[in-house]
Amino acid sequence: MAKVRVAINGYGTIGKRVADAVTKQPDMVLAGISKTRPSFEARRAAEKGYPLYVAGAGRAADFEAVGLKVAGSLADLLAKADVVVDATPDHVGHENRATYLERGLRAVFQGGEPADVAEASFNALGNYATCRGKRTLRVVSCNTTGIARAVSVLEPRWGVEHWEVTLVRRAADPAESKKGPVNGILPTLHLPSHHGPDVRTIFPDLPIATTALVVPTTLMHVHVNHVRLRNPPDDVSEVIAAFRATPRFHLFAPWEHADGTPQVMEYARDRGIGFNDMMENVIWEEGVRLDKKDLYFFQAIHQESIVVPENIDAIRAMLGLAPDGPSSVAMTDRALGLATKG
Amino acid sequence: MAKVRVAINGYGTIGKRVADAVTKQPDMVLAGISKTRPSFEARRAAEKGYPLYVAGAGRAADFEAVGLKVAGSLADLLAKADVVVDATPDHVGHENRATYLERGLRAVFQGGEPADVAEASFNALGNYATCRGKRTLRVVSCNTTGIARAVSVLEPRWGVEHWEVTLVRRAADPAESKKGPVNGILPTLHLPSHHGPDVRTIFPDLPIATTALVVPTTLMHVHVNHVRLRNPPDDVSEVIAAFRATPRFHLFAPWEHADGTPQVMEYARDRGIGFNDMMENVIWEEGVRLDKKDLYFFQAIHQESIVVPENIDAIRAMLGLAPDGPSSVAMTDRALGLATKG
Amino acid sequence: MAKVRVAINGYGTIGKRVADAVTKQPDMVLAGISKTRPSFEARRAAEKGYPLYVAGAGRAADFEAVGLKVAGSLADLLAKADVVVDATPDHVGHENRATYLERGLRAVFQGGEPADVAEASFNALGNYATCRGKRTLRVVSCNTTGIARAVSVLEPRWGVEHWEVTLVRRAADPAESKKGPVNGILPTLHLPSHHGPDVRTIFPDLPIATTALVVPTTLMHVHVNHVRLRNPPDDVSEVIAAFRATPRFHLFAPWEHADGTPQVMEYARDRGIGFNDMMENVIWEEGVRLDKKDLYFFQAIHQESIVVPENIDAIRAMLGLAPDGPSSVAMTDRALGLATKG
Amino acid sequence: MAKVRVAINGYGTIGKRVADAVTKQPDMVLAGISKTRPSFEARRAAEKGYPLYVAGAGRAADFEAVGLKVAGSLADLLAKADVVVDATPDHVGHENRATYLERGLRAVFQGGEPADVAEASFNALGNYATCRGKRTLRVVSCNTTGIARAVSVLEPRWGVEHWEVTLVRRAADPAESKKGPVNGILPTLHLPSHHGPDVRTIFPDLPIATTALVVPTTLMHVHVNHVRLRNPPDDVSEVIAAFRATPRFHLFAPWEHADGTPQVMEYARDRGIGFNDMMENVIWEEGVRLDKKDLYFFQAIHQESIVVPENIDAIRAMLGLAPDGPSSVAMTDRALGLATKG
Repeated sequence: MAKVRVAINGYGTIGKRVADAVTKQPDMVLAGISKTRPSFEARRAAEKGYPLYVAGAGRAADFEAVGLKVAGSLADLLAKADVVVDATPDHVGHENRATYLERGLRAVFQGGEPADVAEASFNALGNYATCRGKRTLRVVSCNTTGIARAVSVLEPRWGVEHWEVTLVRRAADPAESKKGPVNGILPTLHLPSHHGPDVRTIFPDLPIATTALVVPTTLMHVHVNHVRLRNPPDDVSEVIAAFRATPRFHLFAPWEHADGTPQVMEYARDRGIGFNDMMENVIWEEGVRLDKKDLYFFQAIHQESIVVPENIDAIRAMLGLAPDGPSSVAMTDRALGLATKG
Repeated sequence: MAKVRVAINGYGTIGKRVADAVTKQPDMVLAGISKTRPSFEARRAAEKGYPLYVAGAGRAADFEAVGLKVAGSLADLLAKADVVVDATPDHVGHENRATYLERGLRAVFQGGEPADVAEASFNALGNYATCRGKRTLRVVSCNTTGIARAVSVLEPRWGVEHWEVTLVRRAADPAESKKGPVNGILPTLHLPSHHGPDVRTIFPDLPIATTALVVPTTLMHVHVNHVRLRNPPDDVSEVIAAFRATPRFHLFAPWEHADGTPQVMEYARDRGIGFNDMMENVIWEEGVRLDKKDLYFFQAIHQESIVVPENIDAIRAMLGLAPDGPSSVAMTDRALGLATKG
Repeated sequence: MAKVRVAINGYGTIGKRVADAVTKQPDMVLAGISKTRPSFEARRAAEKGYPLYVAGAGRAADFEAVGLKVAGSLADLLAKADVVVDATPDHVGHENRATYLERGLRAVFQGGEPADVAEASFNALGNYATCRGKRTLRVVSCNTTGIARAVSVLEPRWGVEHWEVTLVRRAADPAESKKGPVNGILPTLHLPSHHGPDVRTIFPDLPIATTALVVPTTLMHVHVNHVRLRNPPDDVSEVIAAFRATPRFHLFAPWEHADGTPQVMEYARDRGIGFNDMMENVIWEEGVRLDKKDLYFFQAIHQESIVVPENIDAIRAMLGLAPDGPSSVAMTDRALGLATKG
Repeated sequence: MAKVRVAINGYGTIGKRVADAVTKQPDMVLAGISKTRPSFEARRAAEKGYPLYVAGAGRAADFEAVGLKVAGSLADLLAKADVVVDATPDHVGHENRATYLERGLRAVFQGGEPADVAEASFNALGNYATCRGKRTLRVVSCNTTGIARAVSVLEPRWGVEHWEVTLVRRAADPAESKKGPVNGILPTLHLPSHHGPDVRTIFPDLPIATTALVVPTTLMHVHVNHVRLRNPPDDVSEVIAAFRATPRFHLFAPWEHADGTPQVMEYARDRGIGFNDMMENVIWEEGVRLDKKDLYFFQAIHQESIVVPENIDAIRAMLGLAPDGPSSVAMTDRALGLATKG
């Protein structure tokens, strides 16, 4: 079977990771990536052999002046692809939508776009089946992806009466040096935060309320969860075991001394998958507590990479490349170097 | 009536503020303060005319060598006081307890000590009446004080079915330059955090659960509250009005553009009470939401100063200096330059 | 003699401090301040009794809707003043220049404007005499002011062969929560930095080279100075004594334990002049070293407040309110609560 | 020829990197690593197949309880090695020295030890030849290594009259979450800083003076250099070309948009050698300026990894594994995935 040709439009935090991920999949091939101006990322893309196309207001001459070979325009790139992953800045994806559809391309959008950019919002553990065969999908944002994965573990097993999440968000990505705050906490005063409604694009009936704050760190978000379960297990160890058995969850035992997000990211560096990413929801065993029906747990979310495997699965769901969600997830995770389970 | 003579043992973040606060009260006089080594704080105490006594392993000669006059030893200070406020580092207060009691001194301890350091734990809005006449009191910590004040507003009016707090804590005080983290979020993995039980030293039956994290900022803690009310009001405006009507709450309206803790501290600098302190619970009107029985609100807590007025009221409660809690609170707040209400 | 009527156009970090400073001067009166939108700063200005005028695109109705009384427009304010201090954002001052001059007003501009905004650039210790009687002056920026003060101490006494400064700059002011970086160091790659040329607007012949970096802190800048002296003193103690004898220098002795900018700002809070400002150049005695002709020293610069006394002196220089620079400096410093010397 | 058996004593920031580096060298084999307690680093070592020995107060039972196989004690590890790399915390290496020498082992120490821990201090570009055949070597610290490399480029070509460095140091490594400051700049008040004398352990006659500060970031140190050259080149481009031609220097062109250390570390993640390390001195072309004899340039130093290749070369120098320094450097860099030059 011919491999699916994937174009990546936008080569920033998400785009460059999805490009690498595509090259590792057995059933996909990278058609190329787009950039608007030369940069060290463009240079690295060239060094990796990724065909480089010029998008937006970019000029091929600017790339060529610094020795970066240009394969063509964005239109040229789209002409060579079966599917496009739009990884442009927030709201630009929505503007690109018509361009993709006119060309008969399937398209994956990111969570910074409004939900109506695509036929459905997508999470691999959450609603793979209902997304099969769609022509456009929107991978929900990093925070929503993290919550949706956790819902996928708890809801089917024990039922959810009510779910509260406080999202303690990182202020900026590591390389975004213009954003603050340098010192201070910024509550998101609009209540509830937009994350709860976004989770309901995947689980329409989930009784969830979310609250968010921004704090001066670049590494990861941390979610504080309080879930009232309908039919709770007898012991917290059953909850921990369920997380451990689920793909895209990484648990730290107390003896591992992973005290917080600095140590989680250090583990990621030790593990050494591309960019030192941590594509799984991170849960500390010590930080899970069950008090009758009330379950409390922290989870850390690596904002830069958690949606990367979801983008791959979204492509498979649209194109029918895997028999079902678990198969796609296992294929993706094996290719990316994540632990495969189940 | 003779003014009560107050000794301050320990002249750090809390001690220096309580010393200033004592000098502003009409019914108290500062007997002196203790230091263990010369420093710019000692110099400022001398410049303010505070009698300086040498405590612990400190040597008078070290002070005199740099021109700071020493009035005597800690024993000398205690001999001149009716009551001592212990503002020594955590757990040292517990060691000092016998010394105070042997001398027949009444003593106020801080929230870093275990609850059994004193006959009762104290919060001015929460349990002033039950603390009257005690010989020893413990002012609960900054976070517990903040929660206890909020309980005092909501519980009597609407009843509390359940109270959840996520405490997003500042990593270090502004002048503590050795503590981190510099970049990262540290969840307090022990669940529930110790704050809930500490609140119950004031409100023994309160159904409260608390969770905490540490983030790299020095300015303030922020609490994310979710309270299920027993008999909720019809409209969120009633909740906001109740906070506004209560002493030691400061509310920001949306038009004030106090987006987060950096702006709250800027307001404190603009207001200009000593050290630019913010001794009130800070609540953003926009950040209060009522959804049937579920009340959500943020509050910011200035860890350095919020317990200062409570220390003053604790002295009055022990010594019967005011007819009741509200009278003491009003007297304290007027003297400190806080808004007086009710 | 009638007091000089001072208008403050722009009520941000600098404007609000200069307004307070004006109200403390025996020979000046505050005509009013301008704001473009309601905020907690506007509220505080109203509470202090400062007449509030609406500038720019601001609308009086917006202020009145939240209970803030408006005295008129910027034109109304200017009509009531003898001199205006322009404390608007960078480059806006340049646009305002014609408005001031048309009205025959004298004007003080800030260091964010280009040097040609005014007849001369100003520093009180550096070039008061040459600025007397000018109709427009530009107070140089915080960093340039700090360097110019130090030049005023060293150049006349020992001569300067060469002056190198590395400026380690704070990323954002404490209340500027949108600026970064959160984690990282940003070198100012354009060499030399603009600070050296700016110092030469005060000392045209000074052989100075400056280099700058931005680091993630909000408190103060720190300058690392290396000065090759022409005729050095015999001992470093003479240099320390010269700094100590000069107004607007604050020295910390080793026993004061002011280890870095966090402790310097803590001292400022202990001292308690408005906003907890530190208007002096801060020098650590331990951090001054003389190696034959080579003098090394650190100085910390509080970016928010160091130019405040200079704005006051600039008004006096323009209007002939003091017989000479030292007299003006002494008058200003006494009124502001700074140590007066000499 | 038999491969040299290398033991790594201490498996923290440096130890784990040197261990990985050893496994990549054609002429070395990893005898094993030591740990004192289980952790995620120990788990990763086990997953990589590194023989794990228990050092210090560690107990084998603690490792085995969590499923980590222990190969023996530190003594067992040393018995299997030809050379030991001591990567224990500062000053512990000095205590270990006798143990190594008694066993007839050659030993490499780190820069946190005093210079007399070893027969000579080492830098591959600086003094490889003089270190050949030594039984003990000390790889100088990250900052000293960075300076020594730059000296190796400039001194032989143009001569150095005087070298000034201001070291703007990172406060903590990314995973050290207990160290501060969170907000503030801490000057190293002892002048000159110890770095200058340390550079002279490599270049005894270099006229160098260094000054240091600590700032709240975790990513990299940045050095601000001012070098007065004896016989300067005609144009700055010659200096840039010299850096470009030298191993272990990485230059960024302006079009790459690597504005500061956040972007440099992002490049490192894009490049993707182990741990996303940046083992080279990083220089920004825009940030190099020549003004007659005065050369100014910034360089960024990745404190975690810059000494890793030096440890490898130190082993070769001691054991005569390479004909000369350049050969060793080329062999090391090829194995580590760094650009090889010359």
